[in-house]
Amino acid sequence: MAAEHKFTQEPHKLLVIPGPIEVSDDVLYANAHPSMSHVSPDFIPVLGDCIRMTREILYTTTGQPFLIAGSGTLGWDQVSSNLVEPGENALVLHTGYFGDSFAECLEVYGANVDQLKAKIGAVSTTAEIENALRAKKYKIVTITHVDTSTGVLSDARGIAETVRRVSPDTLVALDAVCSVASEEIQFDAWGLDVVLTASQKGLGTPPGLSILVASQRAIKVWETRKAPPTSFYASWKKWLPIMRAYEAGNAMYFATPPVQLIYAFHASLSAITKGSPSLEHRFAAHKEAARRVRAAGAELGLKTLALEEGFTANGMTALYFPEGLSAADVIPRLGARGVIVAAGLHKEIKDKYFRIGHMGVTVVEPSRGDIDRIVSGLKEVIAEARAAKNA
Amino acid sequence: MAAEHKFTQEPHKLLVIPGPIEVSDDVLYANAHPSMSHVSPDFIPVLGDCIRMTREILYTTTGQPFLIAGSGTLGWDQVSSNLVEPGENALVLHTGYFGDSFAECLEVYGANVDQLKAKIGAVSTTAEIENALRAKKYKIVTITHVDTSTGVLSDARGIAETVRRVSPDTLVALDAVCSVASEEIQFDAWGLDVVLTASQKGLGTPPGLSILVASQRAIKVWETRKAPPTSFYASWKKWLPIMRAYEAGNAMYFATPPVQLIYAFHASLSAITKGSPSLEHRFAAHKEAARRVRAAGAELGLKTLALEEGFTANGMTALYFPEGLSAADVIPRLGARGVIVAAGLHKEIKDKYFRIGHMGVTVVEPSRGDIDRIVSGLKEVIAEARAAKNA
Repeated sequence: MAAEHKFTQEPHKLLVIPGPIEVSDDVLYANAHPSMSHVSPDFIPVLGDCIRMTREILYTTTGQPFLIAGSGTLGWDQVSSNLVEPGENALVLHTGYFGDSFAECLEVYGANVDQLKAKIGAVSTTAEIENALRAKKYKIVTITHVDTSTGVLSDARGIAETVRRVSPDTLVALDAVCSVASEEIQFDAWGLDVVLTASQKGLGTPPGLSILVASQRAIKVWETRKAPPTSFYASWKKWLPIMRAYEAGNAMYFATPPVQLIYAFHASLSAITKGSPSLEHRFAAHKEAARRVRAAGAELGLKTLALEEGFTANGMTALYFPEGLSAADVIPRLGARGVIVAAGLHKEIKDKYFRIGHMGVTVVEPSRGDIDRIVSGLKEVIAEARAAKNA
Repeated sequence: MAAEHKFTQEPHKLLVIPGPIEVSDDVLYANAHPSMSHVSPDFIPVLGDCIRMTREILYTTTGQPFLIAGSGTLGWDQVSSNLVEPGENALVLHTGYFGDSFAECLEVYGANVDQLKAKIGAVSTTAEIENALRAKKYKIVTITHVDTSTGVLSDARGIAETVRRVSPDTLVALDAVCSVASEEIQFDAWGLDVVLTASQKGLGTPPGLSILVASQRAIKVWETRKAPPTSFYASWKKWLPIMRAYEAGNAMYFATPPVQLIYAFHASLSAITKGSPSLEHRFAAHKEAARRVRAAGAELGLKTLALEEGFTANGMTALYFPEGLSAADVIPRLGARGVIVAAGLHKEIKDKYFRIGHMGVTVVEPSRGDIDRIVSGLKEVIAEARAAKNA
């Protein structure tokens, strides 16, 4: 697996938005792999390995991965068109922008959707979730593990436990676009039915790959649905045989996989599952990086959007601008120092906060000094902006 | 636009299947672009340019491009979920494997589909198409421009003319996955409503991008549909504002675009629209390459799947194995010479033929010698295989 090439990516500003994230030279080099047939004996095991390593990262032995060209959004279509039949009930646990979007997707495919909305920066309580589950029978509950618009982390394990206890037949789908490989996810142990994500966040790969893992229980629910799946491109009827074939070492065709991106994903998954740090240390490193960013913010008087430390994400942080300062005072000044952060996204408070991503190589390769640059950049920029206001 | 880098892709076998095709060093290097924010001022015009250059290649000034992470297949979902409402009629002009698939996709979204099937290697006649159009009112007619399973080229211009004359309200959708940039397509002049394709064939980019252009007439039909679109990820309601925003130089978010692949597509589109040869000469070069491959086949007694020269594709050729030889005699021997061709795909005759791709740099950069290698490889291999049989 060792890289023998000498590829070095072009100098560029440090990208610390909550995805896409910084990508290593090895992964980018793999993304420049010469063209290969998608059914060649050389390529088949690369995709097969990606399927196997995706399981490893989620601690599952029986989950069925689906790796499909598309953005993370396509995962919602997969859930909505394969697992929910028109007229069935879905409960969306809403902690920001992405709950609304998942709900809208479910509705497009005919689900009756209820949203349990937590106030901004908070999560719904166990009692609230229990009450919702007792009030109506739901085919599926969706959780946004980390809502990228708010940096709020939901307790996926606790919620899955609650659903299993109160409504055992209800499927639990975790939107983990902004959490896979930056937050621990125990797919089997927590009894999850779907984890869906994308390549460009904790997984450290360029964007363009929808990654979803379904439990055998979910596969069974899908197999026994009354109506056929309501999507073609997102249909597991099409993709399940493909995934099984490639994993078994055989080629099969439905739609051309994004060959170069699969090589890149393979390089990143190899680093995550076989490189240093271990998966456990990777999660610990993300916790420590998040703690440092929050501490730097606190020192400067920047409050996190998340109302309690217990539900702050570890792969990103959303911070309110301090009194008297706005996006225009902070974001361009960080940019001028070569540090690219993201503006607000949650529509009700969009202009009041900004977002910093700290995932992947930025976190697990301290020699890069990325977290130091974020922390010192924040300090300098807030001081400079305050001085400019008082001048 | 000149490349200042010294990136050279790894040595590899010559990939001459009908897609993915060989990709230039410049395009692969662009695919290894450092991570960039999908809403950064540096990236916005790159996507904007891709939208504009996509129009140029199809000779359209008013068509609306959609560039979405996904495979070419996603284009069928776009057509089926945005332009056809459940219960409406669709006519699929079938010239191979991909007609069946497009028909199946339309049915998933609720269309009533009729297929007009030509015999293998042929196309339906104008009279047959006219009769079908007079027998029933169709919302849409789909044409596979080049069916990748057969190498049969349909007369897109003539068919569009027939549809306009006999059934003026019927939309004309061209599946041009295996023809954009290898066959001339005059979107405006021929009155097409949809051209859909993918990045990894004539467009010379790695796979992972669904490219579709819709006419303003198609957009109007979509705007006035009675029921909402039946897909979320493929919904133009979501993507049209995004495409318009990026083209106008503004960022907008629905789903993360495949940033690196957009850089790669930009590099390839720039070479096609601004480099040498001109677009017109590019099409002529594909015709000449196809002629050479057919001539080499004819000399060796290999018949084309296409029954007449008038409907042989210019970006690929499907050839029957000669009497007494099979895939096992030919394909591995070409592979051993470093030339990768594709096996048959049309299910009724899968084992009786093979496919050669001749698109992009393989055709327009004669100094590579790719067509020479194909032609001499064929000659050597057929001779060797025949000698082995007679030994």
